[in-house]
Amino acid sequence: MTHEIAVVPGDGIGQEVTPAAVDVLDALDIDFEFTEAEAGDAVAEETGEPLPEDTYDLAASADATLFGAAGETAADVILPLREAVDSFVNVRPATAYPGVDAVRPETDLVFLRENTEGVYAGHEDRLTDDVATLTRVTTETASRRLAEFACEYVQDGDHDGFTIAHKANVMRETDGLFRETVAEVADENGVATDEVLMDAFATRVCLDPTQFDVVVCPNLAGDVLSDLAAGLVGGLGLLPSANVGPDRALFEPVHGTAPDIAGDGVANPAAAILSAAMLLEYLEYDDEAASVRTAVETTLEDGPRTGDLGGDAETADVTNAIIERL
Amino acid sequence: MTHEIAVVPGDGIGQEVTPAAVDVLDALDIDFEFTEAEAGDAVAEETGEPLPEDTYDLAASADATLFGAAGETAADVILPLREAVDSFVNVRPATAYPGVDAVRPETDLVFLRENTEGVYAGHEDRLTDDVATLTRVTTETASRRLAEFACEYVQDGDHDGFTIAHKANVMRETDGLFRETVAEVADENGVATDEVLMDAFATRVCLDPTQFDVVVCPNLAGDVLSDLAAGLVGGLGLLPSANVGPDRALFEPVHGTAPDIAGDGVANPAAAILSAAMLLEYLEYDDEAASVRTAVETTLEDGPRTGDLGGDAETADVTNAIIERL
Ligand SMILES: CC(C)[C@H](C(=O)O)[C@@H](O)C(=O)O
Ligand SMILES: CC(C)[C@H](C(=O)O)[C@@H](O)C(=O)O
Repeated sequence: MTHEIAVVPGDGIGQEVTPAAVDVLDALDIDFEFTEAEAGDAVAEETGEPLPEDTYDLAASADATLFGAAGETAADVILPLREAVDSFVNVRPATAYPGVDAVRPETDLVFLRENTEGVYAGHEDRLTDDVATLTRVTTETASRRLAEFACEYVQDGDHDGFTIAHKANVMRETDGLFRETVAEVADENGVATDEVLMDAFATRVCLDPTQFDVVVCPNLAGDVLSDLAAGLVGGLGLLPSANVGPDRALFEPVHGTAPDIAGDGVANPAAAILSAAMLLEYLEYDDEAASVRTAVETTLEDGPRTGDLGGDAETADVTNAIIERL
Repeated sequence: MTHEIAVVPGDGIGQEVTPAAVDVLDALDIDFEFTEAEAGDAVAEETGEPLPEDTYDLAASADATLFGAAGETAADVILPLREAVDSFVNVRPATAYPGVDAVRPETDLVFLRENTEGVYAGHEDRLTDDVATLTRVTTETASRRLAEFACEYVQDGDHDGFTIAHKANVMRETDGLFRETVAEVADENGVATDEVLMDAFATRVCLDPTQFDVVVCPNLAGDVLSDLAAGLVGGLGLLPSANVGPDRALFEPVHGTAPDIAGDGVANPAAAILSAAMLLEYLEYDDEAASVRTAVETTLEDGPRTGDLGGDAETADVTNAIIERL
């Protein structure tokens, strides 16, 4: 069976780390068919469109998409791409890796972020010169779908349960609906939950990240709290993510375009390659996924290392070392 | 001139640390008249009302209010109290204190949080069984008022400028209006600004908090990001805050009711006493404010210390030591 993979490198170091991830996938004994497409600042400058229709359609029909990064146009690229794959959950592991200086090296968290609504539903109005409004949307349907995914995730991964992070003491109807629905679904599935206010989470995760494991949250809470956890493990540089839908999914490193080093061939491909490992897992190549992850971890520990980790290796050196270790 | 001070200890350790703050104010040569009033879980249990009308009216007429903490009913107490003093800005310093174990001891930040609108404006609807909405409100008026305060704050305190933290790449109209208005006012006042997306702020402040100094943000962003900074300095235990309005203000420690130690007389009064120092500054007793702050810092460093800081002193011992050092 052939798997169609859309490859959308985007801008900056996306152009370097995405091909590296493709090289790693290509080195495995799996039948992938890769199709590349454009998105981001560069294509927007040429055509006026940060996300050409062809790219949207490709992501909407491929089995999986590997995305790199986009610059100024990031929101105009990634939000529609998430929609193209009908992604209802953004899976964001935040794990401290060996060889990386972390504020909290014991951090080992996974965020399951609602990926379709909340403030991202994006109904905004400028009512008067003085007043602008945004309608934040929460549905039981989306909350339930996320919760069902979370229950499976917890059961498959042998986690003890999950924490619901929200702000239902202020957003009583919307986050109230979210929290109740998620807790109810967990209960139906025999999955244990606890809950924490998102502001209290921000304090407590700094004090002791081992208090938490799997964290389920609304869209913006997941955005901010997972980026906070990224700070605790030493930055966005090594973190992968998955935007999962019912029939397809999109994988992206959490880092941006790194304009300061873009084009120099020295970007760390680890996050893109770890995103490829999430792709393998999504397509149920669990052994291959584990092998890629181990190869990345060994390379982080034993080198070669790129500049961000104090080494002087190039992207290609690191990629080749990972491929050799598969 | 007599200053009328409303004293609202609330629940849990609020009952212990708020009187300690009053004792410190009482020890100064200033003409204060203190009036105590009830709020919180205990009075809600008795009367059904977490915030009795008398308490609201007292806060709305006193020159300043000292608030302690509230339990389950926190939102029903603190949000109307902020309204009672017409507070448009929540001032939240997050500074690592000597003698306190901090993840990032070099943290020295002040958050100026919009205190009236955003998701806290609280227009929520359950449209159908499936759908709940919340209307987030941003006005130019509130953004401008906050920005004017921020400019004065920066100029009076000899800061280089301030950072605007927002999520205008997603909330384009609402956070867009906030960010534009705040930047415009800063420009009019010759105050330098830069800006950062709130998710990027969460990562970057963990990696290096010295990148930031004064941070101006919308309501919920300020709630979460200041609590994150509290985590970096070692918890909420020592942080004071001020809710400032045009004619009056309310001061509160950032910590909660600490039910585990409430009633034992061993709570750390530092945050409440530092909140009293902010009250002194608000009433333009700058020398007295500085003296209280120095006395607290010396006591944190040299003791006596309460249990949260590894000591075994009681609230009264610490309070007396601070008073002796004035
Ligand atoms: C670029 C932006 C719209 C996006 C988001 O807010 O989701 C980014 O921060 C992310 O987390 O992937
Ligand atoms: C209790 C709650 C409503 C409040 C808030 O969200 O503002 C609290 O978290 C705070 O920051 O003072």
